[in-house]
Amino acid sequence: MTERLALPGYRAAIVDLLGLLALGQLSGFTRLAADAELAPCVVLQARMAGLAVTEFGHYRRLESALTGLDAEPECAMAPFRSTFELFHARTRPSTWLEGVIKAYVGDAIATDFYREVAGYVDPPIRALIEQTLADEGRSDFLVQVAREAMVTDPGVSGRLALWARRLVGEALTQAQTVAVERDSLAELLAGRYGGPGADLAELARMFQRLTDAHIARMARLGLSA
Amino acid sequence: MTERLALPGYRAAIVDLLGLLALGQLSGFTRLAADAELAPCVVLQARMAGLAVTEFGHYRRLESALTGLDAEPECAMAPFRSTFELFHARTRPSTWLEGVIKAYVGDAIATDFYREVAGYVDPPIRALIEQTLADEGRSDFLVQVAREAMVTDPGVSGRLALWARRLVGEALTQAQTVAVERDSLAELLAGRYGGPGADLAELARMFQRLTDAHIARMARLGLSA
Repeated sequence: MTERLALPGYRAAIVDLLGLLALGQLSGFTRLAADAELAPCVVLQARMAGLAVTEFGHYRRLESALTGLDAEPECAMAPFRSTFELFHARTRPSTWLEGVIKAYVGDAIATDFYREVAGYVDPPIRALIEQTLADEGRSDFLVQVAREAMVTDPGVSGRLALWARRLVGEALTQAQTVAVERDSLAELLAGRYGGPGADLAELARMFQRLTDAHIARMARLGLSA
Repeated sequence: MTERLALPGYRAAIVDLLGLLALGQLSGFTRLAADAELAPCVVLQARMAGLAVTEFGHYRRLESALTGLDAEPECAMAPFRSTFELFHARTRPSTWLEGVIKAYVGDAIATDFYREVAGYVDPPIRALIEQTLADEGRSDFLVQVAREAMVTDPGVSGRLALWARRLVGEALTQAQTVAVERDSLAELLAGRYGGPGADLAELARMFQRLTDAHIARMARLGLSA
């Protein structure tokens, strides 16, 4: 299967995809580490910092994979700087709980999106991507923290539901932009390099799946989407 | 030597010292990770993030050491929250280069201070502290980045010299406050639990050594202190 990497367009799409993922993990690391400062106590700050450090480990693995493909990580990530800058600028948490929800909801929707796209690439690259998307108990921790905070302050749930809606809106906007406007990825999804291509209807179903999964996650928090 | 840990006052001083170091590493991790966003390119952002992750590793080791002493890490760190909050609030870099100088100068002066205090504790604890203060190529990287940036923009050096002066002023203020106002540490330094105690003249010399080391570091940057 990996002889497809000899196809220039396919290789470009893989480099783009790994660059997108790498920058997502790196910018996620940075924002999560900074948001950890909002924690009400040092132990929670350290737990959140630990989640950030895990993301940095994923970044390192993706960076190595890019180098292994003779791609310059910097160049592979560069096209996606504005994507993540915009996302994080528009979803800057102002409270600890908003940060927790962002870490849970924002990250999960990005993960779902990457996993969908990974369905269009060869097994070895797909396996690498899956490794960097592993949850490793992260969601359980975040859900527990969010639920406990909502128990002590039930009035907050309405505001958090709106916050989550903003997060998912921004995340889907960025995902759609990347999937449609970045030629190599658009062509990958369209099946240009073989494999099952997604027509517009399938793309729409994919975004529907992302939305459904989000609604289920909100339910886990006891919030309506 | 470690039977001294049975002395309540000595044990309290050790827990305080490890708590101080742990929170220093954790807050250093957070600020460094956030300041990495100021990087002009993703590769430098990732290098800076890597330094932050190293600090988090040190935090973990100190947290384990506290747990090993049957101390609650949260409680051990709590007395020093305002120390680090004040320091970081007053030394928030507004440019990448200011962040680099802070990582180099601010961290080094804290390290020198901890190393001085480590001279007053038993060898096993001292060895642990030394491990968490290891430089691991960090200074070389930061000096190189700062020097290169100053070559491309020589006019910046005056402003950076002032910035470094503010950093060292804030760091020494916080160190002095901790060494004098935190009873357990003040008594440790005064030799209350045995070992060579520092009188006021020796404390003054210690702060002189910290200042001298800072001047030498500035010279390495080609800046006057």
